[in-house]
Amino acid sequence: MPELRKDPISGRWVIISTERSKRPDAFVPEAQPSPADYGDSCPYDEGREYMTRPEIMALRRKGTGKDGPGWWVRVVPNNVPVLQIEGDLGRTGVGMFDMMNGIGAHELIIETPKHGEVLPDMEETQIERILWACRDRIVDLYRDKRIKYVLIFKNSGINPETTFFHSIIQIVATPILPKQIKEEMAGAKTYYDFKERCLYCDIMRQELADGDRVIDENNSFLLFAPYASRSPFEANIFPKQHASSYTSITKDEVTDLAVILKRFLRKIRAGLKDPPYNLMLHTRPAFVGQRQEGATIEMDYHWHVEVVPKLTKLAGFEWGSGCYINPTSPEEGAKFLRDFKDY
Amino acid sequence: MPELRKDPISGRWVIISTERSKRPDAFVPEAQPSPADYGDSCPYDEGREYMTRPEIMALRRKGTGKDGPGWWVRVVPNNVPVLQIEGDLGRTGVGMFDMMNGIGAHELIIETPKHGEVLPDMEETQIERILWACRDRIVDLYRDKRIKYVLIFKNSGINPETTFFHSIIQIVATPILPKQIKEEMAGAKTYYDFKERCLYCDIMRQELADGDRVIDENNSFLLFAPYASRSPFEANIFPKQHASSYTSITKDEVTDLAVILKRFLRKIRAGLKDPPYNLMLHTRPAFVGQRQEGATIEMDYHWHVEVVPKLTKLAGFEWGSGCYINPTSPEEGAKFLRDFKDY
Repeated sequence: MPELRKDPISGRWVIISTERSKRPDAFVPEAQPSPADYGDSCPYDEGREYMTRPEIMALRRKGTGKDGPGWWVRVVPNNVPVLQIEGDLGRTGVGMFDMMNGIGAHELIIETPKHGEVLPDMEETQIERILWACRDRIVDLYRDKRIKYVLIFKNSGINPETTFFHSIIQIVATPILPKQIKEEMAGAKTYYDFKERCLYCDIMRQELADGDRVIDENNSFLLFAPYASRSPFEANIFPKQHASSYTSITKDEVTDLAVILKRFLRKIRAGLKDPPYNLMLHTRPAFVGQRQEGATIEMDYHWHVEVVPKLTKLAGFEWGSGCYINPTSPEEGAKFLRDFKDY
Repeated sequence: MPELRKDPISGRWVIISTERSKRPDAFVPEAQPSPADYGDSCPYDEGREYMTRPEIMALRRKGTGKDGPGWWVRVVPNNVPVLQIEGDLGRTGVGMFDMMNGIGAHELIIETPKHGEVLPDMEETQIERILWACRDRIVDLYRDKRIKYVLIFKNSGINPETTFFHSIIQIVATPILPKQIKEEMAGAKTYYDFKERCLYCDIMRQELADGDRVIDENNSFLLFAPYASRSPFEANIFPKQHASSYTSITKDEVTDLAVILKRFLRKIRAGLKDPPYNLMLHTRPAFVGQRQEGATIEMDYHWHVEVVPKLTKLAGFEWGSGCYINPTSPEEGAKFLRDFKDY
């Protein structure tokens, strides 16, 4: 059983993932497998559905059956989950420390039945299906009262989940509110209490007025480099219509998000020589403790997507200070991507 | 002039480092230079003192002169600083955002005149000299009233500062209190307010009682794997004698720290196949706003050293949640290093 442990100094939770336990001698750097290595044995390919755990949901052609071929998007539990769905939280003290069982969920959204196909090459209708699957999983996972947060994220390139170079998105549902989300919520609440306006809506207005950090926009979304970007070419995608939860996304918004996301991923691939990237979806938690005063979470939180091309490495300064050094100004990065046409 | 920008949501500060500005086309991964590549032109070697900026301090043999040979440890300003010492803070609003000029200091402690020599191979007296230089730089930099924090850290291996594979420690002095330090101070204060005891002292007592996360100890220091370690083989070194500031370190403590640090670095080099590592020294800030109630910073903060071997990569989950996944339990990691004798 994985464990969640709380650091008594910072209050941050860490997942001690015994399921993926690595012995000390397992840390020798390994050769990266090339995409072709596993092309003939990938468990995420159409026709090898038996190699994954039974599917949780799938968007499939009519007449095709569960765990068989004929799907566009398929969601399965990760074979090596960082958190597991069965059991009780068992929150307890260990001497002066705090821990709980690693209860939660770890699912994979298999984005495509086609081995090797990546998001920037997919048809927009396919990206829309993926976006709808994200929504449905959040709705479903938040029905489990042990779940406090659902984080949807993507590590592009090769990682433990994509050893087979099959494009996937990951879902981790946690029984704790992650530090990053707590901080976003606190920042948004403080601002709302002071201004009686949504902080994210105000940032959007400011970015549209300034213009020099805007990378792209359409009817529903603004894509821009944040003023205090932590790393080069980091981008935020904010829905123009205020909403705290991704689950309230509309059909038009899904269409517009697929378009703007695909264009951005094509631009960084062509303009920055295909860097790996991380993508994170931040939506509101299922439940928020009742507040004594001020706005509700519906008013002060604003869902959004963050995309971070991996171009720099974090080192001792970032690790030791929590402060970041960014060698490219957001304005310069935004201008480069805004003007980049050959994607 | 570099800029410090504040993220309006999380409140974190980011250094936009124009001095090290990278153009978009500069992000193609480069081949790592091998240690031998620059052995005949390293600016940190004895005899090439003219290649660095004038030294800030040095520990040298009697009769040798500033910026000449004859030194054991030499401290110089970084040629490409992330923050610069000249100028005013110029704290200002930019629309709804907050920024200030990138005022501060970025210095390098050249650990040895010998090209290619690394900490685990140095004599303990040499490591002691380095530890004294760290202390003297903190004392001196805290005299500048614009400086709120001095972070001393080391990125082992090859990085922009050590392209030449000459072992160095970095010092970054910031006009803001870094997030990580703020959080440690807040955690320690909350605990003290509740228990009227130092949190760090209590953790040490708990670790000594449990024993299974202890890696090493001597008269002055305890070296252990934190209960909620973020990554495999992460280690904390706490001074057994309570003190908030590294600047109050004693002669005996310097001797003991050199011994325990060297032994740990030798163990991870031999036992984990020479991973790169980050080392961070956390000491109290120069000034702390007067508190209305509770303990003073001298009572509730406790300086310490953190060492993090770089064996895992941060990805979308960590970046998006602020929560960490650690595939090796601290108990298992500590046992491996505690029992490892062949170093």
